[in-house]
Amino acid sequence: MTRGLTIALDAMGGDNGPGTVLPGAELALVRQPDLTFLLFGDEAVLKPVLNEYPRVAAASEIVHADVAVAMDDKPSQALRRGRNKSSMWLSIAAVKEGRADVAVSAGNTGALMAMAKVILKTMPNIDRPAIAAIWPTLRGDSIVLDVGATIGVNAKQLVDFAVMGEAMARVVFGLKEPSVGMLNIGVEEVKGLDEVKEAGRILRESNLPIKYYGFVEGDDIGKGTVDVVVVEGFSGNIALKTAEGTAKQIAEFLRNAMSRSLMSRIGYIFARNAFKMLRERLDPRKSNGGVFLGLNGIVIKSHGGTDAMGFASAIDLAVDMGRNGLVAKIATDLEMFHNAAASQSDPAETKAIAL
Amino acid sequence: MTRGLTIALDAMGGDNGPGTVLPGAELALVRQPDLTFLLFGDEAVLKPVLNEYPRVAAASEIVHADVAVAMDDKPSQALRRGRNKSSMWLSIAAVKEGRADVAVSAGNTGALMAMAKVILKTMPNIDRPAIAAIWPTLRGDSIVLDVGATIGVNAKQLVDFAVMGEAMARVVFGLKEPSVGMLNIGVEEVKGLDEVKEAGRILRESNLPIKYYGFVEGDDIGKGTVDVVVVEGFSGNIALKTAEGTAKQIAEFLRNAMSRSLMSRIGYIFARNAFKMLRERLDPRKSNGGVFLGLNGIVIKSHGGTDAMGFASAIDLAVDMGRNGLVAKIATDLEMFHNAAASQSDPAETKAIAL
Repeated sequence: MTRGLTIALDAMGGDNGPGTVLPGAELALVRQPDLTFLLFGDEAVLKPVLNEYPRVAAASEIVHADVAVAMDDKPSQALRRGRNKSSMWLSIAAVKEGRADVAVSAGNTGALMAMAKVILKTMPNIDRPAIAAIWPTLRGDSIVLDVGATIGVNAKQLVDFAVMGEAMARVVFGLKEPSVGMLNIGVEEVKGLDEVKEAGRILRESNLPIKYYGFVEGDDIGKGTVDVVVVEGFSGNIALKTAEGTAKQIAEFLRNAMSRSLMSRIGYIFARNAFKMLRERLDPRKSNGGVFLGLNGIVIKSHGGTDAMGFASAIDLAVDMGRNGLVAKIATDLEMFHNAAASQSDPAETKAIAL
Repeated sequence: MTRGLTIALDAMGGDNGPGTVLPGAELALVRQPDLTFLLFGDEAVLKPVLNEYPRVAAASEIVHADVAVAMDDKPSQALRRGRNKSSMWLSIAAVKEGRADVAVSAGNTGALMAMAKVILKTMPNIDRPAIAAIWPTLRGDSIVLDVGATIGVNAKQLVDFAVMGEAMARVVFGLKEPSVGMLNIGVEEVKGLDEVKEAGRILRESNLPIKYYGFVEGDDIGKGTVDVVVVEGFSGNIALKTAEGTAKQIAEFLRNAMSRSLMSRIGYIFARNAFKMLRERLDPRKSNGGVFLGLNGIVIKSHGGTDAMGFASAIDLAVDMGRNGLVAKIATDLEMFHNAAASQSDPAETKAIAL
């Protein structure tokens, strides 16, 4: 049923490098035994770690890379030091050259995005890539994009994000008609940024086969009001980090409350399965992985500080993407959108879309 | 110890009008018996409700208002219909005329802000007001501003927000040197909006007596990393609503988990005091009230859907503000800042500040 995908892994990326990447690959292989990995990194470092994971060793090929991009390298530094020879660069290049279906890295986001743009280039008619996050909600999962790739986008770029996010929701969630909302604010006076209002107008009035819901507010994300939430990268990143912070804060409040008295500690023991379930539900490792969209190839960014289980989730996401031909789907959708936009006669709309 | 403040209440504001406002005033009076209220609203509606709250009746004067601004009135509509005769307008005007120290309304935010700007006017050198929210954190409370008054501010306006928020933290939290952070994003490439970077530079390099911490990210809000978080209104509103949504979502997950099995329900019974404590900690009514800053007078916006306890919290906040002379403190600080800015010789800085 599955064809064997090849995943390029930046084995040196993340806080813990191969110590997380290789056991993560092992976990992913248990779930998807037909995967093949290209492991990019320092051969002398990788080999001994790989010996501990014979399953990964059997499914992998090591490609030596002289340089490892540091977590605090600036993108420009990373490009200077790592072009053509870092594990990060080479894993993305493997996607470009068709030797891998998807690349996964836990390395630093800025460097990864910079290299991905240089190597894979943005898709036709796309000026700005986006990072899409999977966001656990009361109704399952939603996709939120952009969570930090680009700052300050115009209406046309927000519509591009909507098209890309919608295609991703079909691929990852298997939905036929995912709903799409534009994140906006609830103060009546202004009702949001001009770009957001204009993007909403385009989506509403266009003949795109997109189920456009309308504006949503910050609290709609957690409710799962829509399957895809579109937002500019600065606000999107703040929303994502704020939600993570709030989740941690409440977990801490809960821990404090449960350990305060003998009664509450007894209660905790009785209810420990319930707490376990809650912890699993809130486990950030389960939805680890930001997807770079808008490039001619798929790159997945794993959290730098995640563990093997989190890295395995990022690989799972990579498999979903690679297997379902996300890039081709997005390219088709974008072409349809841009053709539809170009054929519209209203000059105001054409201007807005052609920006 | 306390002088008797007079609070102007928009008795018709909010989803439930006097049905929430009057019992809220009753609760506030229990805590602060020396308050006096001016109750603005339809006398025929207010009188019967007021009979149920003799304590409020004894401490209040009803001022009849013909019009009640609706929760879905646009600001322009509200101004047209409600100028000089709505309960909302008249309660703000009482502050302007010195008959009340602070005004509190649970009415619609856009209309309230529009009327407050028309009646009270912005302070000298301030172009844009801000709404400041009290945000519960792991370290106590922080102030976050702006959470939705203004969209798209420049560096100088962000610095104004820092000055106003810092003064508010001294007044509300009784801190001598509250720390101030600028909300930014963690993607290394870009490190944030130009305005944010520029505002950070001004705060770092100025001789303002402000304890400037630097940039903070979304997850720092819940941690309580700084006492005052400065952000532009669009992102600030999204952060606030996203945090509210996340808190509700986790509470729902927790409820589901605790009711799933007999064991967990028994555990819940043992730990019910712990859960009660958690609920109290997360109770949005306890930190109800957005403060309009940057105007020549204080207006407090209560959540429209809150109950008596929540409205009483908004009155408590109004008392803190009125008693400690917030407007005068802010005016002094702003004057100091603008004088300092004007005396700086570096033309680039002067330009940035004078924008």
